[in-house]
Amino acid sequence: MSSGVSTPVLTKPVDVAEYLFTRLHQIGIRSVHGLPGDFNLVALDYLPKAGLKWVGNCNELNAAYAADGYARVNGVAAVVTTFGVGELSAVNGLAGAYSEHVPVVHIVGCPSTVSQRSGLLLHHMLGNGDFNTFANMSASISCAVAKLNDPAHIAAQIDATLRECYLKSRPVYIMFPTDMVEKKVEGERLETPIDLAEPANDVEREDYVVNVLLKSLHAAQKPVVLVDACAIRHRVLDEVHDFIDKTGLPVFVTPMGKGAVNETHPSFGGVYAGTASAPAVKAMVEGSDLVISIGGMKSDFNTAGFSYRLSQLATVDLHSDSCTVRYSEYPGIRMKGVLRKLTAQLDVAQIKVLPPPKLDEVVDTKGDAGAVINQQWFWARIDRFLREGDIVVTETGTANFGIWETRFPAGVTALNQTLWGSIGWAVGACQGAALATQDESGREKARRTILFEGDGSFQLTAQEVSTMIRHRLDVILFVICNDGYTIERYIHGMDAGYNDVMPWRYRDLPAAFGGTEETAKSYAVHTRGELEALLADAEFNDRKGLRFVELYMPKEDAPKSLILTAEAGAKRNAMTE
Amino acid sequence: MSSGVSTPVLTKPVDVAEYLFTRLHQIGIRSVHGLPGDFNLVALDYLPKAGLKWVGNCNELNAAYAADGYARVNGVAAVVTTFGVGELSAVNGLAGAYSEHVPVVHIVGCPSTVSQRSGLLLHHMLGNGDFNTFANMSASISCAVAKLNDPAHIAAQIDATLRECYLKSRPVYIMFPTDMVEKKVEGERLETPIDLAEPANDVEREDYVVNVLLKSLHAAQKPVVLVDACAIRHRVLDEVHDFIDKTGLPVFVTPMGKGAVNETHPSFGGVYAGTASAPAVKAMVEGSDLVISIGGMKSDFNTAGFSYRLSQLATVDLHSDSCTVRYSEYPGIRMKGVLRKLTAQLDVAQIKVLPPPKLDEVVDTKGDAGAVINQQWFWARIDRFLREGDIVVTETGTANFGIWETRFPAGVTALNQTLWGSIGWAVGACQGAALATQDESGREKARRTILFEGDGSFQLTAQEVSTMIRHRLDVILFVICNDGYTIERYIHGMDAGYNDVMPWRYRDLPAAFGGTEETAKSYAVHTRGELEALLADAEFNDRKGLRFVELYMPKEDAPKSLILTAEAGAKRNAMTE
Ligand SMILES: Cc1ncc(C[n+]2csc(CCOP(=O)(O)OP(=O)(O)O)c2C)c(N)n1
Ligand SMILES: Cc1ncc(C[n+]2csc(CCOP(=O)(O)OP(=O)(O)O)c2C)c(N)n1
Ligand SMILES: [Mg+2]
Ligand SMILES: [Mg+2]
Repeated sequence: MSSGVSTPVLTKPVDVAEYLFTRLHQIGIRSVHGLPGDFNLVALDYLPKAGLKWVGNCNELNAAYAADGYARVNGVAAVVTTFGVGELSAVNGLAGAYSEHVPVVHIVGCPSTVSQRSGLLLHHMLGNGDFNTFANMSASISCAVAKLNDPAHIAAQIDATLRECYLKSRPVYIMFPTDMVEKKVEGERLETPIDLAEPANDVEREDYVVNVLLKSLHAAQKPVVLVDACAIRHRVLDEVHDFIDKTGLPVFVTPMGKGAVNETHPSFGGVYAGTASAPAVKAMVEGSDLVISIGGMKSDFNTAGFSYRLSQLATVDLHSDSCTVRYSEYPGIRMKGVLRKLTAQLDVAQIKVLPPPKLDEVVDTKGDAGAVINQQWFWARIDRFLREGDIVVTETGTANFGIWETRFPAGVTALNQTLWGSIGWAVGACQGAALATQDESGREKARRTILFEGDGSFQLTAQEVSTMIRHRLDVILFVICNDGYTIERYIHGMDAGYNDVMPWRYRDLPAAFGGTEETAKSYAVHTRGELEALLADAEFNDRKGLRFVELYMPKEDAPKSLILTAEAGAKRNAMTE
Repeated sequence: MSSGVSTPVLTKPVDVAEYLFTRLHQIGIRSVHGLPGDFNLVALDYLPKAGLKWVGNCNELNAAYAADGYARVNGVAAVVTTFGVGELSAVNGLAGAYSEHVPVVHIVGCPSTVSQRSGLLLHHMLGNGDFNTFANMSASISCAVAKLNDPAHIAAQIDATLRECYLKSRPVYIMFPTDMVEKKVEGERLETPIDLAEPANDVEREDYVVNVLLKSLHAAQKPVVLVDACAIRHRVLDEVHDFIDKTGLPVFVTPMGKGAVNETHPSFGGVYAGTASAPAVKAMVEGSDLVISIGGMKSDFNTAGFSYRLSQLATVDLHSDSCTVRYSEYPGIRMKGVLRKLTAQLDVAQIKVLPPPKLDEVVDTKGDAGAVINQQWFWARIDRFLREGDIVVTETGTANFGIWETRFPAGVTALNQTLWGSIGWAVGACQGAALATQDESGREKARRTILFEGDGSFQLTAQEVSTMIRHRLDVILFVICNDGYTIERYIHGMDAGYNDVMPWRYRDLPAAFGGTEETAKSYAVHTRGELEALLADAEFNDRKGLRFVELYMPKEDAPKSLILTAEAGAKRNAMTE
């Protein structure tokens, strides 16, 4: 169709769409999320050739959420939308990925460069002749924007943009005009993979920081390690484990950092979240004279309402793009190199190691089988249901706070969106996560993906259950049926009508969304006895496909950590000078 | 809670939330769409006092679509979301309202001005300490932005912003910090309604334009009138009808203008859309030596792929903010004043009136009762099902093109989103439209609201059916079950997997979404005979609540107008220089 060659000499000409999708495959993507639209249809034809599967989500916001979940498990993800209507539908999902440091490549099919120059009034336009409005909107939630308008630059643009996405671990935006899809670019470049290696720190400056750290570490009487979300997102978990293995220092995680550390490790001390921590955890972390914080994200919900009581004089902060030791700042020094050198150079003999706090006793499961399932009991109980390697997704709401109380087996990956906190996210993210593990290991060996979802949140994105069924994903989905927005009730309006939701027959949805006896099965549990029976049921544990559980909990019941955080939030909202 | 008085002398102090909501009520809003979030909860407590109902949608995009539909029927609407996550979820819905000139007030509950100044890392933030990023994103899809940060200015800001929304007929964005909700402003202002009157044109310039127009009109041999969407949105339908009543000139509508003109009027000539028009319509409009185009929006889909063959030398364009006569432009001259004066001053004796084209014969409904329901037959058949005063909503897809063929009874309001074309819109818009008529006339006297929805589009926003049921809206909803994205198939990829959707059991959804025998009933029709029987069924026609119809049509079948438009679009996408 297109005349093709636009640069004079191409050794191995390939179409732009093939180039882009081959690059996605090379950086590890196997499935592409999104929805078709007339400005991306022709490009989609190129997916199979590059070894990529098309997901075909129900809507673009859900697709973006799913790509986010896929990236959290797989390392990176892509979502394709169409100009204006599609991309703007997705924008909140990508904002979440930006906020939470998740690398998602957003590819937007847009009108041809010819149409753009002519200023035509096409569908999906605002009527102002401006083809850049939407790209500008996305620029503030992307770490790079590439407009593929000129074949001479496209290959280099794609490579640089994908590298940025991965290294910064944040979304990038690629604007892909219809008339560029079949233009030719240099295919020989594809023989050299994009360099995704993290750039090394300046050696002299790094050595300096490590030295400062070593002195502090060797001198400290009660050092502890605190691991947070950016340690996961910026890929230093191996370095973290090497450090705790070698030192034996007690290690804690924040709520967003849950899953970063093997919770069966002898040094694991539990979840630290200020006033919402277990008393022994709080005492040890806040009594420490050196808290080594790795990848910290100190937001209100991650700190139980800014309730840390840590002194900056006793704190080391290691980040993906800077380090801080007490009040000394080292911008541009990345934690990965620092951690490696620190572990290599430290002198174990000089390190004072206290034993981690004893963890709480396992909850009594005998009790009354007829009793309601309350939050406190449930989250402590569910730990023995989890298995090594499970992927556990929790939604903003009671689930995101409840999970603080659940002790994970080794190798569990926890997904939550505690900073951005967009409800409905978890359903999409669960679809993406389940697909990622299936893409990696095949259906037989895939990890289990388990979602704890609020009933209110579920209503925002319920239809993505259909995508789980469509792709035969193996998902266990608990909908916490507690008559609406319980988390909001604890912030304001315990009995307010705006915190109610329409009572759905949740368990009928999988079948309405096309599930069959083989691909989806529904359950409902109202009492502890019913839950115990379900969790003990081998068929439930081992069958494939979707297992969809209505889990009834009381309306006015929330984890203690949520109640504390909600109170702090309500106060902050009302505060006037 | 708050200290209250912040300006020294207030005659009748009222809280900001009360002021804002009272103003919404005064400009005609009775229901407010949206979702709660902790940054808007306290404000929502003020709704009942101002006489406003809370809708409580399933998600924010759907809420914005619903507000759009409400505004199209009611004249103006409001949607409330929460900072970041909520507002960005809604942004595509508001972009659609901007594109299509629909006045929607978007109120965003955001962190307190105290938190904003402190730069805290709160939930729903990007982690960059910037509280204005989202407002900036919305600025490009809003005709005004107001940040309610200082009680001394808030009342005036609200009044000016609401006025702008109504007059420009486009969305406005109001950023409402939690600590401003209970601040006091001057309530005495509320005794004077906001002036929503359209400003008059400069008399001398207006007279000049009218004169030019009169000369053209009196001299023309074959004048015709063409009415488009902005005539509806900028509220000149009375002026249009006065003009055609007095002149008797043949009048046509564009696809987006459908419903603007009483289609039983003797001067009504049908739908003009370039090559997709009926031959007699095309001949008359394109053979005219003076096309008076009122509120034109000449986008690709509204013109069957820019297939108008009109000469600018024979065209008059009347807009809400400018007029053009042949090549003479009159910026700033509004059509309302011009139309009124034109009608008042024209000399009927000098106007040459041709009879409008004879409209196509009514389709033969006898035929084979067992035959499939194809697009051509259906859209011509459905006209006799419609009643005076119905509200007819069509989705982007076969429905939006098919409806061109349906002749409306008098007083039908047609809702479509032909320019912005975001699929899923119609489900939300239908909820909003049905609520608007119920708010206006009460449930007994409300108009019927009828939605023709594509199966693919339905999957994006299906859960808003639950909101229809929750508010006991009287809606007849046809889901066109044709195995996926037929409109896209005609653009590219007739058999491509990306144009398939998951087969749902659509008719089971209303019950799963909480419908009961009383509030929702499902039907399925596969043949013409079954459809005839359903349409003749008095219970179906007259029962209240939701009537949800699975309407089966062939996968590879589309209205002729769609096929022509799709071909033009595919060509434009592929076009290279
Ligand atoms: C997109 C979006 N809209 C609104 C909110 C505000 N919000 C936060 S939590 C919540 C309620 C969640 O309710 P549910 O999922 O039922 O959780 P639970 O009852 O377990 O607390 C709402 C409305 C949000 N965070 N994100
Ligand atoms: C939000 C959004 N995403 C994607 C598109 C691209 N698109 C336009 S029409 C369409 C398919 C509509 O299919 P359906 O509703 O089944 O209509 P029909 O089969 O009747 O043509 C798609 C995907 C869009 N317009 N808006
Ligand atoms: Mg709930
Ligand atoms: Mg369809």
